[in-house]
Amino acid sequence: MNTEADVNDFIQNGYQEYLTHLSIDPVILGYHQQQLKILLLKWKGYKDWGLPGGFIKQREPLSKAAHRILKEKTSLSNLFLQQFYVFGDSPYRVQERSPQEFRDKFNLQVEDDNWLLKRTIAIGYFALVDYSKVRVQTDFFTEDYQWWDVAAVPKLLFDHNEAIDKALLTLRLQIYHQPIGYNLLPEKFTLPEIHSLYESILGKELDQRNFAKKLIALGLIQKLEERRSIGAHRSPYLYQFVKEKYEQALQEGIVHTY
Amino acid sequence: MNTEADVNDFIQNGYQEYLTHLSIDPVILGYHQQQLKILLLKWKGYKDWGLPGGFIKQREPLSKAAHRILKEKTSLSNLFLQQFYVFGDSPYRVQERSPQEFRDKFNLQVEDDNWLLKRTIAIGYFALVDYSKVRVQTDFFTEDYQWWDVAAVPKLLFDHNEAIDKALLTLRLQIYHQPIGYNLLPEKFTLPEIHSLYESILGKELDQRNFAKKLIALGLIQKLEERRSIGAHRSPYLYQFVKEKYEQALQEGIVHTY
Repeated sequence: MNTEADVNDFIQNGYQEYLTHLSIDPVILGYHQQQLKILLLKWKGYKDWGLPGGFIKQREPLSKAAHRILKEKTSLSNLFLQQFYVFGDSPYRVQERSPQEFRDKFNLQVEDDNWLLKRTIAIGYFALVDYSKVRVQTDFFTEDYQWWDVAAVPKLLFDHNEAIDKALLTLRLQIYHQPIGYNLLPEKFTLPEIHSLYESILGKELDQRNFAKKLIALGLIQKLEERRSIGAHRSPYLYQFVKEKYEQALQEGIVHTY
Repeated sequence: MNTEADVNDFIQNGYQEYLTHLSIDPVILGYHQQQLKILLLKWKGYKDWGLPGGFIKQREPLSKAAHRILKEKTSLSNLFLQQFYVFGDSPYRVQERSPQEFRDKFNLQVEDDNWLLKRTIAIGYFALVDYSKVRVQTDFFTEDYQWWDVAAVPKLLFDHNEAIDKALLTLRLQIYHQPIGYNLLPEKFTLPEIHSLYESILGKELDQRNFAKKLIALGLIQKLEERRSIGAHRSPYLYQFVKEKYEQALQEGIVHTY
């Protein structure tokens, strides 16, 4: 959707292709240089940044819609994607939007009863992506994108700060029963690498020795007979996730601690 | 909505009052005689049982809608109510419903494009209720209700078995960072009472001594200077939840184990 003709068609006729009242707002997280990063977009005419978003097609299964929207934004398929909350309480999620806003920001004509102005309840998904593989797609409505350190996210549009907080809370609560690091780290990693990722997600310091001992004792990660050479006297062992252990924990409802 | 006139008005004009494409399907759980129970309804003309459900009003905040629907069904206010998943993938959540089905089951006329036949994505909430206080309300569409042991739920309508499984999984995962027992037990309880509730939720046996020791050590429950007299030589101590500990755990993303 890059030409003005496409956009006008979407505005006038999109209600035939998409469900009204519902959007999918993905919180896209990647890990780079020991920072947990989030992908934000800048919409035309708006001062503040915001989350990407998209609509569900009339007969499209919900999770298929989420994957399609993620692919449209990041060019990536088969991402780790998980629902975390439905946002329908804040004034932004109850009130209709103003046609004047559309005219002012995008210089587009919309009628008062246009489907895009209706109250929209947002289904939050978080995606864990390999930062280096993302190729961000912008469209007519967006003029820029940027990866932000999750610890330094600015004030965002609508209720998007709340969405990010909720996504991070969910990540933290699930960190010991979903292989979350699995999607953010390379297949083989060192203990310092996983340690600093988990510190980023939890937003606090973890004792490095106890942390590693615990993950190994629980069987969540295993040591490989392979080292990485990073200097004259430095060649730490590599580790990998044991996915079955997470699946078992999830099935049995066993919650691990550290 | 008990008369046929009310029902016809709801069918013909309900789209003006409610959002189309969205419903709230509550999984209502109570605890009675050492069993975790779920409230199911029987719709007129259907063989299988199903979850209760309701629609969101045009300008009603989502969580307010959930509380209103719960109150309509159970007569209770201020329940512990939590979103757990949005269901939009199964064929029941993608296809439109047949007007013939409505005519056959309820003996009501609906046109092919009626709002009630449209694809409906269901927002799942679970409610933890005091079983003894519930006064179930049935309406024109339902002919019976019953509390079922969660371990013996029959095959249900639509994707409702999946909804219950997902609700229980969420309960299990959150059992150590939400004061779930708080809403299902009396304010003061004995160790055997909380032990058997947690066994019901987790669906497996827990060593009674370790379980209690752990909850006490974590500060999640505390012993009172008060006993319950249940026999000549039996007067177990009473305990209560320490809600602040759960709130702290939830904020900090600390996950407890047993």
